[in-house]
Amino acid sequence: MDITEGSPDLHGFRMPAEWEPHSQTWLGWPERPDNWRHHGVYGQSAFAKVASAISKFEPVTVCASPSQFLQWVNARKQLPPDVRVVEMSMNDCWFRDTGPTFVVREEGKSGPGTIEQNVAGIDWNFNSWGGIDDGCYIDWSLDLLVARKILSMERVPRFPKSIILEGGSIHVDGEGTCLTTEECLLNKNRNPNLTKEQIEDVLKAYLGVTKIIWLPYGLYSDDDTNGHIDNMCCFVKPGVVLLSWIDDESDPQHGRAVEALTVLSNSTDANGRKFEVIKLHVPGPLYMTDEEAAGFVPGGDAKPRLPNTRLAATYVNFYICNGGIIAPQFGDPKRDEEAVRVLSRAFPDRNVVTIEGAREIVLGGGNIHCITQQQPADPMFMPLQNGNGV
Amino acid sequence: MDITEGSPDLHGFRMPAEWEPHSQTWLGWPERPDNWRHHGVYGQSAFAKVASAISKFEPVTVCASPSQFLQWVNARKQLPPDVRVVEMSMNDCWFRDTGPTFVVREEGKSGPGTIEQNVAGIDWNFNSWGGIDDGCYIDWSLDLLVARKILSMERVPRFPKSIILEGGSIHVDGEGTCLTTEECLLNKNRNPNLTKEQIEDVLKAYLGVTKIIWLPYGLYSDDDTNGHIDNMCCFVKPGVVLLSWIDDESDPQHGRAVEALTVLSNSTDANGRKFEVIKLHVPGPLYMTDEEAAGFVPGGDAKPRLPNTRLAATYVNFYICNGGIIAPQFGDPKRDEEAVRVLSRAFPDRNVVTIEGAREIVLGGGNIHCITQQQPADPMFMPLQNGNGV
Repeated sequence: MDITEGSPDLHGFRMPAEWEPHSQTWLGWPERPDNWRHHGVYGQSAFAKVASAISKFEPVTVCASPSQFLQWVNARKQLPPDVRVVEMSMNDCWFRDTGPTFVVREEGKSGPGTIEQNVAGIDWNFNSWGGIDDGCYIDWSLDLLVARKILSMERVPRFPKSIILEGGSIHVDGEGTCLTTEECLLNKNRNPNLTKEQIEDVLKAYLGVTKIIWLPYGLYSDDDTNGHIDNMCCFVKPGVVLLSWIDDESDPQHGRAVEALTVLSNSTDANGRKFEVIKLHVPGPLYMTDEEAAGFVPGGDAKPRLPNTRLAATYVNFYICNGGIIAPQFGDPKRDEEAVRVLSRAFPDRNVVTIEGAREIVLGGGNIHCITQQQPADPMFMPLQNGNGV
Repeated sequence: MDITEGSPDLHGFRMPAEWEPHSQTWLGWPERPDNWRHHGVYGQSAFAKVASAISKFEPVTVCASPSQFLQWVNARKQLPPDVRVVEMSMNDCWFRDTGPTFVVREEGKSGPGTIEQNVAGIDWNFNSWGGIDDGCYIDWSLDLLVARKILSMERVPRFPKSIILEGGSIHVDGEGTCLTTEECLLNKNRNPNLTKEQIEDVLKAYLGVTKIIWLPYGLYSDDDTNGHIDNMCCFVKPGVVLLSWIDDESDPQHGRAVEALTVLSNSTDANGRKFEVIKLHVPGPLYMTDEEAAGFVPGGDAKPRLPNTRLAATYVNFYICNGGIIAPQFGDPKRDEEAVRVLSRAFPDRNVVTIEGAREIVLGGGNIHCITQQQPADPMFMPLQNGNGV
């Protein structure tokens, strides 16, 4: 059902923080051979690890396309029985960006329409991270339907397309603050006709936030997304963030991180809090090997994946689920271990589960946060949590 | 989740009668141009009418394939907003035959496994109504996955494939009696290595019935299905059936109906009741016109649809949903009206809703019952009904 009258905030909706209770997590399934080497077999194995890890904490649905007829069966065979597998066509499998952004509202709120549910979904517009000339692939016609198919399957009302925006380009604290990057949201390949103020107005109206913190840049080398915030910086809780850091001052990421730190140090959130910034050192730097690059099958419409490209690898691209933190590991022993330590301290009440081989997801252009999408629990049907209830 | 140990009856499951409460109804979506004239536009319109009519009584899910990219959008546009549309690949759209046969169990029953749910699904084997040489089309690889995809989507446990059987070839009264035809279930193009007794044993173990009534034949000209029972005879309630009748003694259907009447008159059901048989006169006879036949696009792998073919049209192929009867109309004023009268008397507590233009579904090889599949409500989560509760 489409909600055609009024933005989410007018109906009392807000985007909850990722740590608020979920009813389930959604993932796609990698297969396109021009973006997932060796026809997706390694990528699928990594997705299966992530889905399996999350399923220990909450229900998981994996959507697999019917391509080659066997993808559904293929996914079903690689996933634990309690992970739901449904069929869905897609151009690629980055549900953080192509899935809906779910919003919730608490009891008693109402709006101009007659919506009964307390969970709804925003179906942003999407242009393959930059459009025909600058995007990651040229045909994104199936991706455009992913959010509405998910919402339809769940009978969740849908706020139709607004601006071009990917879920990975925003983070919220659930209490009125949104974190994003100018590099992505102000990029002329997204919404060239909107001013910064107009984009802020849309974020406020759709996410139910009152203050937007703009970091100048995302992670160095995250060119696919033009610097999504979810590779750069994320909330731990209101007032506390994790920042992709690198000590080496000669590394291009260092300057970006310092600029972000400066902005954060001089900002307060929607509730007037100053930010505590926890530095989370990136691995490597890591680069795509010749062998890895040779595994991609050219001939699709995706950007080529070239050897020696700097990989956009960071531990900030983890996922928060009910009681758990699903965190990437990159085979860099020192930084891998350090990341687990930092995350465990940052989230003392959650179980940090590591995914070995997350490098495989980076080869495709993202990481654990990019491939997941949380569906929040209905606030009316759960116990009160962290003061966000009725 | 697959239940690999023990047949449904051993776990306490039985197939409920169609009139027992449903949680929802499933339908597919017609498109293949070798079986749906004019690329499915008329068939889709008829399916939309049926889905829309049922949705007034209970939730409906329509599964549309991603073919030509637009089928999902196409279905979404033609259906009311409260009908759920999900993506699913299929070779054709006869969910009575390719969907799961749902079974239920009442409180307190248990079995060899650890199944917690009280609704499960049987995923029969399927061979396109007769296999490579005798079936309706040659590639049924996608149809083979329909039942498991539906069950996966609903997180309903699945009893894996047993014998080759289509849901349209069985009717039950929910109290131990199964009605079927020898023409179909004993056809050598289905399970050539099983005896009649072995097939009876499977029906008893899977449907939880104790007595099978075998009519010799299905409806005359129902060659696609080899005489499915759901075009010939169905239960109104335990001990009462409707029979596809024709007065004209020279019509080939007359003899089939008389033979069925003879069997029914000499049988008792699982509880020792004698049968009351209500005759329901078929329309016409109806034949495919030249114009209709010209609308099919040859070149697929489906059996050709030829002009002047006798259509397997009968009012017995209606659907029972919560509070409603969804009944076909064929443009034969006398018989159409008579059918509504008979059905209204047979189901005094239900609202009989007619579908004009049901002829379009017959052109594809079936009717309203053939394209629907009921998912029963969990007996543990509904008020007591007709004595089948706790």
